[in-house]
Amino acid sequence: MRIAVLAIGNELLDGLVVENNSIYLSKELSKIGLSVDQKMAVRDEKDKILSALAYLSGNSDIIIITGGLGPTEDDKTRETVAEFSGKKLNLDESILRWITGRFAHMKIKMAPENNKQAYVIEGSIVIPNPTGTAPGFILPGKPIITSFPGVPSELKTMLPDLLKYIQANYSIRKDISSVYFRTIGLPESYLDQSFKVLQNKGITVGTIAHFGQVDIRFDIPIAGKEKAMEIAKQELTAFPDIEKRVFSFNPEESIIEAVFHLLKAREKKVLFAESCTGGLLSKMITDIPGSSSVFLGSLVTYDNSLKQKILGVKNETLRSHGAVSFEAAREMLEGLKNIAAADYYISVTGIAGPDGGSPEKPVGTVFIGFGSKTQTVLMRFLFSAERDKNRDRSSMRVFEILWEALVYGSPDYKNYFGLIDFQILP
Amino acid sequence: MRIAVLAIGNELLDGLVVENNSIYLSKELSKIGLSVDQKMAVRDEKDKILSALAYLSGNSDIIIITGGLGPTEDDKTRETVAEFSGKKLNLDESILRWITGRFAHMKIKMAPENNKQAYVIEGSIVIPNPTGTAPGFILPGKPIITSFPGVPSELKTMLPDLLKYIQANYSIRKDISSVYFRTIGLPESYLDQSFKVLQNKGITVGTIAHFGQVDIRFDIPIAGKEKAMEIAKQELTAFPDIEKRVFSFNPEESIIEAVFHLLKAREKKVLFAESCTGGLLSKMITDIPGSSSVFLGSLVTYDNSLKQKILGVKNETLRSHGAVSFEAAREMLEGLKNIAAADYYISVTGIAGPDGGSPEKPVGTVFIGFGSKTQTVLMRFLFSAERDKNRDRSSMRVFEILWEALVYGSPDYKNYFGLIDFQILP
Repeated sequence: MRIAVLAIGNELLDGLVVENNSIYLSKELSKIGLSVDQKMAVRDEKDKILSALAYLSGNSDIIIITGGLGPTEDDKTRETVAEFSGKKLNLDESILRWITGRFAHMKIKMAPENNKQAYVIEGSIVIPNPTGTAPGFILPGKPIITSFPGVPSELKTMLPDLLKYIQANYSIRKDISSVYFRTIGLPESYLDQSFKVLQNKGITVGTIAHFGQVDIRFDIPIAGKEKAMEIAKQELTAFPDIEKRVFSFNPEESIIEAVFHLLKAREKKVLFAESCTGGLLSKMITDIPGSSSVFLGSLVTYDNSLKQKILGVKNETLRSHGAVSFEAAREMLEGLKNIAAADYYISVTGIAGPDGGSPEKPVGTVFIGFGSKTQTVLMRFLFSAERDKNRDRSSMRVFEILWEALVYGSPDYKNYFGLIDFQILP
Repeated sequence: MRIAVLAIGNELLDGLVVENNSIYLSKELSKIGLSVDQKMAVRDEKDKILSALAYLSGNSDIIIITGGLGPTEDDKTRETVAEFSGKKLNLDESILRWITGRFAHMKIKMAPENNKQAYVIEGSIVIPNPTGTAPGFILPGKPIITSFPGVPSELKTMLPDLLKYIQANYSIRKDISSVYFRTIGLPESYLDQSFKVLQNKGITVGTIAHFGQVDIRFDIPIAGKEKAMEIAKQELTAFPDIEKRVFSFNPEESIIEAVFHLLKAREKKVLFAESCTGGLLSKMITDIPGSSSVFLGSLVTYDNSLKQKILGVKNETLRSHGAVSFEAAREMLEGLKNIAAADYYISVTGIAGPDGGSPEKPVGTVFIGFGSKTQTVLMRFLFSAERDKNRDRSSMRVFEILWEALVYGSPDYKNYFGLIDFQILP
């Protein structure tokens, strides 16, 4: 099944927006055994869209369009696909009511242009858009033409409808089954190297790294995901150091969600004191619906005056050791303990950059404190020269620490990459 | 001059790599008055590259290829372009010496496959690659076909050669100039509708929405970006309600950066108390390097016990009004004032969802408190039924409030979309 993605929008060609929808589509399609054959981006111009449709129709079985479904003049997807396929556009009263209702709920006056989003190409299947006003559609044919809004969050909620449609109507070759699992704290090159021996068993291994986590895909020559997963788990036992770092066999579950589920199941609560991560830790855990059951809060004491006032970090400590030090990380932890009774406390203080580094404490120096009812560990890391990476790595490391504390009773701090030094407090 | 970008590589279609080269190309080309008309990504397969070249040749003046110039089996660009254009590939001894020399310098044994990179299409102009082994080329013709390595750093060092070639050989039509500006707080459909009258003056208007912000592009029939910007600013004066909401004429600057620059220039500091945004506000401002000069911190009091303990929110308030109320938002602001001396205080408390809503306070109910030295305003909003949107909208609204306070002395709260009610405190 040859799949083409066609993204529509001037912003994609003017370099203003990174076109991430096609990345998302590739990942989701791969989960049902399909891959994207080609992708294209064209401007909001009818003749250009028509020309692209004509070309892609000649060499694709499905064309997935993103963008151009909105209410404005620029949005031409619906009428252009209708014209291309020689079909009529009909007003759908139920969609119109839904759109009108959404505007009423938001207490925004609905512009008459929004009516346009209620038109449906004859013979097409409507894909409802629960979070926006532009519905998508599937127009069966050769090729199938299907269309989604360009807004990534809307695409995400709507894509499952297309995947179900494809699975129901087409037999996808499945003599190779892909299974995924997710690891944390091991470098991609190490994983890649370790799994090379599996080639002898006909298992192809792919790795995808995203800060701190590496996803692993085993392509196993067998039909059926469940059987393939059994084989994968069996093979993994030959790599105990890797097996220990697998936090999920669900490719959708992040390490943050894994930690959240463990905390929730055990009725444990966390409390953070953040400096260099600047609220990122807190943002990450509260991205998860229901996080209030495990997360008390985070004191983002960016300025030293707040570290003193709220967490009780001593003036003397800041003067002699600085805010980025074992001592400050320890006092921040203690401050948390005085504020509320949690099960796990985390403090993070470091030099994210680009400024503030010194020969003794270069940019990328980060102290993380971990406290539980039985244990206090302070760790010093040297991450990266880049601000964003330092913030991301510090945050991911915190979730790794919490995951290990929950699963193995204690962080595996001695084996952390980037660890420079540590202190264990009595 | 119609420009197409053709990116070659399986990794681009398997969702493993974000294709950023075309973004870079768009930005660099725009600096010499050119824009990319369409872009395409295809797999490392000869017939697919040939088919794409045939299509793009029919509607482009220049095809810029990235990727596929390396030494491996997968790299097929050079020979495919030669075949497509019916030209021979000849070994270039000087390039071969350069490649051999690089390997010697790196003390790496050169694989025989690397010879392939020393072949040149007859009639093409070689673009030297100072930082890699794969040279690029420009093949004059209709269209011009030009080719660069997919490695972003190599593309960057080599692209100036192409830009110079284009400028030397083609007069670039500059009779339409695009200028961008960014607005906040107005719906896309309203902007689109308002600007329709500009069509009479030959100005085409495009809009791009990303949560809370709408970017506007004016395509103005005049040569020269500076003159076009003058005209755009002049035209804007006819739309005072929109002009008031333009926060930047730089398409790269976010509202958060705009607020940061204003705070920094005026030496002002902010302090936040967050509940439903859960650290997102804090994360957003600390994404910006140098934010420590304007940001004291954020107290993410997710659990009510922290609202009481740290911010001094009264037990009585929580019991009779709840944590999501005017009263709680006000006490959170007061708590901040007792903790540190800032210039602007923000408190946010709401029901992000999915749980916690009630008929009286449905999911999406958010109270935002704004305090400055002279003013305290409490606002009640009803945003969305979705958790992510509620968090995003609350955060964007806060930056909008701060921006207006900095630019106009006070938030324009009465006109906010989604506003349900407000209180002004003496």
